[in-house]
Amino acid sequence: MAPVNNIVQINNNDHPPKYKVTIVGSGNWGSVASKLIASNTLKLSSFHDEVKMWVFEETLPSGEKLTDVINQTNENVKYLPGIKLGRNVVADPDLENAVRDANMLVFVTPHQFMEGICKKLIGKIRSDAQAISLIKGMEVKKEGPCMISTLISQQLGVNCCVLMGANIANEIAVEKFSEATVGFRGNREIAENWVQLFSTPYFMVSACQDVEGVELCGTLKNIVAIAAGFVDGLDMGNNTKAAIMRIGLREMKAFSKLLFSSVKDSTFFESCGVADLITTCLGGRNRKCAEAFAKNGGKRSFDELEAEMLQGQKLQGVSTAKEVYEVLKHKGWLEMFPLFTTVHEICTGRLPPTAIVEYSEHAPKFPIAVNPDAFQ
Amino acid sequence: MAPVNNIVQINNNDHPPKYKVTIVGSGNWGSVASKLIASNTLKLSSFHDEVKMWVFEETLPSGEKLTDVINQTNENVKYLPGIKLGRNVVADPDLENAVRDANMLVFVTPHQFMEGICKKLIGKIRSDAQAISLIKGMEVKKEGPCMISTLISQQLGVNCCVLMGANIANEIAVEKFSEATVGFRGNREIAENWVQLFSTPYFMVSACQDVEGVELCGTLKNIVAIAAGFVDGLDMGNNTKAAIMRIGLREMKAFSKLLFSSVKDSTFFESCGVADLITTCLGGRNRKCAEAFAKNGGKRSFDELEAEMLQGQKLQGVSTAKEVYEVLKHKGWLEMFPLFTTVHEICTGRLPPTAIVEYSEHAPKFPIAVNPDAFQ
Repeated sequence: MAPVNNIVQINNNDHPPKYKVTIVGSGNWGSVASKLIASNTLKLSSFHDEVKMWVFEETLPSGEKLTDVINQTNENVKYLPGIKLGRNVVADPDLENAVRDANMLVFVTPHQFMEGICKKLIGKIRSDAQAISLIKGMEVKKEGPCMISTLISQQLGVNCCVLMGANIANEIAVEKFSEATVGFRGNREIAENWVQLFSTPYFMVSACQDVEGVELCGTLKNIVAIAAGFVDGLDMGNNTKAAIMRIGLREMKAFSKLLFSSVKDSTFFESCGVADLITTCLGGRNRKCAEAFAKNGGKRSFDELEAEMLQGQKLQGVSTAKEVYEVLKHKGWLEMFPLFTTVHEICTGRLPPTAIVEYSEHAPKFPIAVNPDAFQ
Repeated sequence: MAPVNNIVQINNNDHPPKYKVTIVGSGNWGSVASKLIASNTLKLSSFHDEVKMWVFEETLPSGEKLTDVINQTNENVKYLPGIKLGRNVVADPDLENAVRDANMLVFVTPHQFMEGICKKLIGKIRSDAQAISLIKGMEVKKEGPCMISTLISQQLGVNCCVLMGANIANEIAVEKFSEATVGFRGNREIAENWVQLFSTPYFMVSACQDVEGVELCGTLKNIVAIAAGFVDGLDMGNNTKAAIMRIGLREMKAFSKLLFSSVKDSTFFESCGVADLITTCLGGRNRKCAEAFAKNGGKRSFDELEAEMLQGQKLQGVSTAKEVYEVLKHKGWLEMFPLFTTVHEICTGRLPPTAIVEYSEHAPKFPIAVNPDAFQ
């Protein structure tokens, strides 16, 4: 499909303005997101048909440019081969050009690129733009996590929602039933717009007014997946694995609530909470590498296992565990979070993998200043 | 160890009265419970060392009586072979005699036997007796579920707690790390007594003031396990399975809250809630038979599969789904519980197994009279 005209809002009395969507990112999950979105913009009159997708340009082994191939075949042959994205998806290697006309911006890049991308976009986006982040993982600094949605909001001066959930991209690509959660801050109408844009019969999206809770779920679950992987590697069985996942969910909830008093318990019952935790602890690369780590008795490092097992993909759980450990230490909360703490100490070789079930002989301890309700 | 004296409470000024424990039931889980308990009564001064276990007498192929073999070998050779129960466990085939001296009664029989057992025990137990039920499954009647703890309370005139959780008996028997939840109604001190009696370094027990919520988790999870088994049989992947488990947990919570306004959200984050659900949906006989049912396209009945796969054990999920369906129909709640409803309709052949992921195109509908907060 040829790019449609550049006039982005048909604004006369008969037709309300239409939303124009650009996806920033075109990896595996970004490509699946473009497929979901493109099917909806064709159907729904409130959106322009055309969906732009910014693609970090690469030259394929054939000598062709990736964007050219996507625009000719409607497939991201490198990151989502075999799946048609929709003829109304237009790949664009020029970031500024890709976002220029959009008032709905979907961010879905590896998280370490977001700071650079934001810098490039300052002053280049529409004043009425809304943003959503599909990026799991974030920078956790000693003072607390620097959330990607906050980074986008602050750098670009836009409202930013998040979309998280039990979302294995390749399973959604082949239209297996799945769910997701949109986390939003104030405006429910905008959240409902995002829900409409992503929902399909096989992808059920619901909105949850708790942007921090939803976003923290997406990153903290990776620490629990490391713990679950240790249990698998030690052959401890389903009982123990379920117990460790439950303790992990409890620590995710408590950590989030202590950092942001606005975080709601109910968020952890949403797809972004318990469902994403389950998916990640059943499959997932964090679990897989942690299993191998425990099977080797901790004698082969995560760096080594990652290089061998993940073909260049990165393991987020180990670095998130380290970052969360720093926050816990800084705040004096280590004893309240025995699972998070033990995962980090196993990853760094200070404790053996078997410690994952021994730590828990010690119930969490609460310093007087801390509200134990966070653990309820 | 020879049975100790029959004076159950040494009550002088130097020693507070001691609790005397009897376990009613000696199957797989009952035997594991006796092992946990017997290790604690030896250690803790507030309990008599001796633990009585009522055993439904059987003659073994060797011609010996099961109780004799248990008392000679300290092993339940039929239901938990290879595991020492503790020398202070005394098997007794006489129900009345077994309970006569006890003031802590642990009920752990198949649920269909409880009504008969209660009838036999009326007027035969101590007036200061406390009870706890480890029995998962209950009679769900149209007016609502008749909970086992209520049956025990009403028939015997005693306070009855429950203990539920992610508890695969054979894994706990070999001391793999696990958790459980004690649900109690009013008296936290009594609940803490039960927590003490069951807790070991590998079995972490916590108390939760929500007896109905804890008990309902133990039975409703089996419906969700049937749904999870269908997803496995259809080869839908972890994403879909996690979504179905999450929707199931949501319906468990909503159903419990609508039946008992005292039920707490936080109960579903305990071992009895999310952890037991995970264990049951990963392993477990309900999941396994439902997987086979879906693989056969629903063409072989559950009765047939049960007979073939379970060696005489019973499948609770199918009958619980039917009973819950009757309640939902009676109350006019069918459309609010698409997952529970669909499981029953698949089990009875009215819908194909694939409907498990199609039903969910329809979000639950709320009649005006019902508080939608139950679903939050």
